[in-house]
Amino acid sequence: MAAQSPVKKVVLAYSGGLDTSIILKWLQETYACEVVTFTADLGQGEELGPAREKALLMGVKPENIFIEDLREEFVRDFVFPMFRANAVYEGIYLLGTSIARPLIAKTQIDIARKVGADAVCHGATGKGNDQVRFELGYYALEPDIRVIAPWREWSFASREALLDFAEKHQIPIAKDKRGEAPFSVDANLLHSSSEGKVLEDPSVEAPEFVYQRTIAPEDAPDKAQVFTMDFEGGDPVAIDGERLSPAALLTKLNQLGHDNGVGRLDLVENRFVGMKSRGVYETPGGTILLAAHRGIESITLDRGAMHLKDEIMPRYASLIYNGFWFSPEREMLQALIDKSQDLVTGQVRVKLYKGNVAVIGRTSPYSLYDQELVTFEEGKVAYDHRDAAGFIKLNALRLRVAAKRDRRGR
Amino acid sequence: MAAQSPVKKVVLAYSGGLDTSIILKWLQETYACEVVTFTADLGQGEELGPAREKALLMGVKPENIFIEDLREEFVRDFVFPMFRANAVYEGIYLLGTSIARPLIAKTQIDIARKVGADAVCHGATGKGNDQVRFELGYYALEPDIRVIAPWREWSFASREALLDFAEKHQIPIAKDKRGEAPFSVDANLLHSSSEGKVLEDPSVEAPEFVYQRTIAPEDAPDKAQVFTMDFEGGDPVAIDGERLSPAALLTKLNQLGHDNGVGRLDLVENRFVGMKSRGVYETPGGTILLAAHRGIESITLDRGAMHLKDEIMPRYASLIYNGFWFSPEREMLQALIDKSQDLVTGQVRVKLYKGNVAVIGRTSPYSLYDQELVTFEEGKVAYDHRDAAGFIKLNALRLRVAAKRDRRGR
Amino acid sequence: MAAQSPVKKVVLAYSGGLDTSIILKWLQETYACEVVTFTADLGQGEELGPAREKALLMGVKPENIFIEDLREEFVRDFVFPMFRANAVYEGIYLLGTSIARPLIAKTQIDIARKVGADAVCHGATGKGNDQVRFELGYYALEPDIRVIAPWREWSFASREALLDFAEKHQIPIAKDKRGEAPFSVDANLLHSSSEGKVLEDPSVEAPEFVYQRTIAPEDAPDKAQVFTMDFEGGDPVAIDGERLSPAALLTKLNQLGHDNGVGRLDLVENRFVGMKSRGVYETPGGTILLAAHRGIESITLDRGAMHLKDEIMPRYASLIYNGFWFSPEREMLQALIDKSQDLVTGQVRVKLYKGNVAVIGRTSPYSLYDQELVTFEEGKVAYDHRDAAGFIKLNALRLRVAAKRDRRGR
Amino acid sequence: MAAQSPVKKVVLAYSGGLDTSIILKWLQETYACEVVTFTADLGQGEELGPAREKALLMGVKPENIFIEDLREEFVRDFVFPMFRANAVYEGIYLLGTSIARPLIAKTQIDIARKVGADAVCHGATGKGNDQVRFELGYYALEPDIRVIAPWREWSFASREALLDFAEKHQIPIAKDKRGEAPFSVDANLLHSSSEGKVLEDPSVEAPEFVYQRTIAPEDAPDKAQVFTMDFEGGDPVAIDGERLSPAALLTKLNQLGHDNGVGRLDLVENRFVGMKSRGVYETPGGTILLAAHRGIESITLDRGAMHLKDEIMPRYASLIYNGFWFSPEREMLQALIDKSQDLVTGQVRVKLYKGNVAVIGRTSPYSLYDQELVTFEEGKVAYDHRDAAGFIKLNALRLRVAAKRDRRGR
Repeated sequence: MAAQSPVKKVVLAYSGGLDTSIILKWLQETYACEVVTFTADLGQGEELGPAREKALLMGVKPENIFIEDLREEFVRDFVFPMFRANAVYEGIYLLGTSIARPLIAKTQIDIARKVGADAVCHGATGKGNDQVRFELGYYALEPDIRVIAPWREWSFASREALLDFAEKHQIPIAKDKRGEAPFSVDANLLHSSSEGKVLEDPSVEAPEFVYQRTIAPEDAPDKAQVFTMDFEGGDPVAIDGERLSPAALLTKLNQLGHDNGVGRLDLVENRFVGMKSRGVYETPGGTILLAAHRGIESITLDRGAMHLKDEIMPRYASLIYNGFWFSPEREMLQALIDKSQDLVTGQVRVKLYKGNVAVIGRTSPYSLYDQELVTFEEGKVAYDHRDAAGFIKLNALRLRVAAKRDRRGR
Repeated sequence: MAAQSPVKKVVLAYSGGLDTSIILKWLQETYACEVVTFTADLGQGEELGPAREKALLMGVKPENIFIEDLREEFVRDFVFPMFRANAVYEGIYLLGTSIARPLIAKTQIDIARKVGADAVCHGATGKGNDQVRFELGYYALEPDIRVIAPWREWSFASREALLDFAEKHQIPIAKDKRGEAPFSVDANLLHSSSEGKVLEDPSVEAPEFVYQRTIAPEDAPDKAQVFTMDFEGGDPVAIDGERLSPAALLTKLNQLGHDNGVGRLDLVENRFVGMKSRGVYETPGGTILLAAHRGIESITLDRGAMHLKDEIMPRYASLIYNGFWFSPEREMLQALIDKSQDLVTGQVRVKLYKGNVAVIGRTSPYSLYDQELVTFEEGKVAYDHRDAAGFIKLNALRLRVAAKRDRRGR
Repeated sequence: MAAQSPVKKVVLAYSGGLDTSIILKWLQETYACEVVTFTADLGQGEELGPAREKALLMGVKPENIFIEDLREEFVRDFVFPMFRANAVYEGIYLLGTSIARPLIAKTQIDIARKVGADAVCHGATGKGNDQVRFELGYYALEPDIRVIAPWREWSFASREALLDFAEKHQIPIAKDKRGEAPFSVDANLLHSSSEGKVLEDPSVEAPEFVYQRTIAPEDAPDKAQVFTMDFEGGDPVAIDGERLSPAALLTKLNQLGHDNGVGRLDLVENRFVGMKSRGVYETPGGTILLAAHRGIESITLDRGAMHLKDEIMPRYASLIYNGFWFSPEREMLQALIDKSQDLVTGQVRVKLYKGNVAVIGRTSPYSLYDQELVTFEEGKVAYDHRDAAGFIKLNALRLRVAAKRDRRGR
Repeated sequence: MAAQSPVKKVVLAYSGGLDTSIILKWLQETYACEVVTFTADLGQGEELGPAREKALLMGVKPENIFIEDLREEFVRDFVFPMFRANAVYEGIYLLGTSIARPLIAKTQIDIARKVGADAVCHGATGKGNDQVRFELGYYALEPDIRVIAPWREWSFASREALLDFAEKHQIPIAKDKRGEAPFSVDANLLHSSSEGKVLEDPSVEAPEFVYQRTIAPEDAPDKAQVFTMDFEGGDPVAIDGERLSPAALLTKLNQLGHDNGVGRLDLVENRFVGMKSRGVYETPGGTILLAAHRGIESITLDRGAMHLKDEIMPRYASLIYNGFWFSPEREMLQALIDKSQDLVTGQVRVKLYKGNVAVIGRTSPYSLYDQELVTFEEGKVAYDHRDAAGFIKLNALRLRVAAKRDRRGR
């Protein structure tokens, strides 16, 4: 980088953990700037109180400590819109990490504006997708913001060097962080992901201790659990008749999934930065939601609408995976998707059993399923069997003309 | 229809069952023509001997009875090419019925040419997809063939009228066919489908007696079953190290799936003829194959190749579902897909447990997974963290320019 | 068709010409029903007064005669939204006929509701696209409406039989309609199309007398004509600084195009009903509008937005061509397109010369074109050449890994 | 960059011009390595002899000077395959620069292998697309090659500093290179592009002196020029009946285009590196070829094939524009495209007039255009008007069901 102007105030995405604590200190040392910490509750299931204490300990001013409960916003404005698209990356991944990053970036920028910061900082490494997702978010929302990515900048050559730095600056190191973690984790209300170290060889089965959000199917109850989910306008609103806020609903689904061993995924994926990586994901509630949403769509969504959604989905999923949530094209695709969801309203019955999710019933006041139309007897409904003859004949016409031609040509 | 020329010889897709036996007789009566029967073994699991006897009984000449074992051709030339695409219709349906129809149509046309027939006939009803699939196949291969679709032509007003006709012509009616079947079934080596009657209300769970090809997850063993699958050029070639022919391999996978309650699907789908219908599908081997194929692709397929495949897949699946197997556009998409599969070679380990299919390991001599690249330490590999900074900066550039512009404009 | 209930009142899309006059009479004779005529001014350039007189002459009650000037609605709600998408069918056709049909269908249905009609009727033939477009529009808006398509129903075996019927019923036949027209024409404010007869051989150049809306490039002035077009939110609003209503603006563009020999097209296209047909189209104003719209988009539309639009355009165009304007998927695509157009605002300078349309200048208050960014000198702008190195390196990463792998595999 | 190993031998893409001569010297100075020059004849219309002399003058060994005539390979293996796709970037740009880069990269790598070089070098700047195209090509073909991009590496702060360096090293500077060129040019057999300086303001019309490969439409003959083009398997093979090699044919088309003012384009495009830039392109022969290819396809290509091609085209064009010619996904798309072209064989008649290109006739032994089918009279052809009724009815079915539903829901 060319010599840059000094940083005055930086908003750090601060988890309270060892790594971002080291970053906090490193920022103070390296940039001699005021550090503002932002700690988000996205449902990762950790206490946020210690983050405040640690920040204070490291000299962050009280007014520079931001701790925000973003769970409802996360589910309502990010998770649910994404599930309207039935988005899966590379056929199977439910994008649990990807979808949280833009919200963190957005809140960081909001805080930077509020406190008059000129820089933001994140703790993502230089080989992963998250650095891209954070930074594209920052730049899309605040194009001239200064971005600090310590993992790409500092000169620590090893884990040991990092720990030395921590000790030197009296950053507390939990005992279990002394040795290297056997894998790294990201978690939020939608999922937990694990990758690295013991998971790096894709030929070796992920060990059971990797899983944190679900019990093994083998350990789940021997009896299936059945419940209903109500949808309105494409989003879930109630479980077993109880209306729940978005975050409460997803929390409830997570519990149901957890208890029945639902939502484990072990895969090799293609990162945006160019290499393949292996990850283990647990998305208990999301896995149920995807199946249930497809279930309610199956009776309420027109064929043309559904097929169009299915065709654009991989691209929509890639945009989110690659960090382009705040891009014109993601917003355009969202407009297309949302346009289809007005009447995706009704109820599905879901059955969970030892890792399986099955939709076993669907009803809707706006159902497009017409029992009379589909019945084998022709009956009184306005379906004339002979229409099918014409339909086939005209669909076949070009194929017939081509077949005659091909005889001449091949 | 306008008055048409008389039919001289017709090739009937003949299952040997009651309905196509009625059709056989009806053809003889209505068209006063020679009937040629064609009965295919597609792995539906029924004896074909009786079909010959019944045809003889109804006066079909021995040289006009064709019984063909198409299982290997079916799996090798239709099922496997389709699975190279990871094809699923409307997100979940594995196209088990759809993929068999073009082969039946093709063989019927081959026989028609051999025996000099001027017409072909199928037993599909006037409200379903199969009539379309059969007839598009016929026309694409033999554009001037005469097609007879009895269900769209005859005047039987009810099931009773049909049975009366059968009795009048001494067509044997099995006791259990007296009453109406509680649902209708299609089966082949890839799947069984059930629809109609007891399944017509999509809010009601499919009763257990509908399932024929799989045991319930609840009834499957309490212990997981693990095995390996070898792939070469995108197709499976061995299970647990044993090389198998395509049909033998799929048969083996079906057994594995059956035993572990794998491959049940209960859905509402959109028919090409315009209405929604509810079906229950069992695709035990295919469900495993799809997961395993994605597994081997995950380490052998380049990202660009995979994403392109994923994006065109819904269209490819719709073409097959709608009956356009023998169309230029399906063949073009197949060329695209096949081009990607040369090095989709290697082994996956698969774990089945009470309805779950999990890929738990993948290896390949042509793996694109590079453990050194992905490891968190930068190490000796040719990945410079600072490259990521430039990568992000240029990906962000248009978003930043737009963000500045939007402040002016919004 | 099965025997149908009698028709009480039918709304006929009535041009006032010979063919629809025959239809009017035929409806009265065949269905013994009340006929309501609807004649639309879509800018086809014909007097509509005679349509009223003829209808009265044939016994249509005054209150059953509807003559509507739809030009503004046509351009504002159909033509402009379509041009936001830069829609062309099969690479070149500007969809001038296709886009008028849904508006006619919609207005017919509106009138049918107003007068309590139970049927609608159009004069499109049984081999063309227009029957599909009309009827899909009818059914999408009024699903139980009865549709009468005389050309598919009546038994006139020849043009002579039709004329005999006309004479018998004192329908006036213009002298030049005695013999057969050398080709058939459809016209509206967007375009004129000609097809049939003298145009049927696609190897033969269209004769000059076919063209009606444009002079030949050879006959256009020797001096180029330059003018400006202002756009707001994706739609043109002014020419040479003069604000014009949508219809007035398109009329003005048509004049400019006409005078400079702009907008002729001679092509072979694929009809939805399955055959190829040859048409000659003149779209003088539309041809200019397409170029100008692309011009203003080129500086105001983000790359991601533009590429997404370009990728979905062929499908959007096919939907309109095939008659699916009133379909969920067309509306979803429109939502996507419209979402991109907010800031497609600014001015382009257009140069017309003997058939050529060139955009020679573009300005916008919301331009994304940044002269400082693009200049060869690096200068003060926030573009670091070294970013490009990282950008390329990471874009190349997967290709490099694959190249190494391929050496092993091929 | 981390400290890198020394370079021993580098292959430079050497035009013989001032800039690449400076690079040649800079390489010798900076890397103290052996420089191999590679000069390609891609039809840019410059003498290549001087490049050899200059290289010798600057101390390049005779055996290290490679001058290759790549014109036939360029047109046959790059230009024609691309035109099979009717590729245009952002709706209008014919990709004339983009398509030449992969061939240069490939030949450079071939030479590097032959001479045992460990590095390659190009003269593209750090803000453009060409650096990406060159380098993605290098890496895809030779993943461990060292790439030197002087414009991103050296420290010359201005044009003056560069010229000082040239003078200091006795590199001859043509008088007209003293001052800055008013714009920069790239040329090959397919096109010439001009950008920069006088063209940087997109609101200002490109001055006439920018154009080099075409005369102005205003200066073209007053009489149209008509000729035939023969196609075989999607590629042009003859003009006016004279069979020509690919390069000869394109040369001939260029002459025809030049003489009639065909192929000028003035646009603002989106670069892969993230900014918009303005370019003026002249593609005389390519513009004719695109129109003619669409013309022959219009009668020989099935609708399904054509629409699929049209839908994937924007992506194919972006891949080429962005430098991904040697990528799995471009090759997959090419397989799809090529699969469609077998019978794209026949003749079109083309008319050029003052900038206009019109296809005025098409014939093919493999035509799918069936005059009998399309004729208005029903006649003897196998098209039953009543088939259209069924076709429409079933296409409308889902819309009707949805319309009834929507009344309940909205």
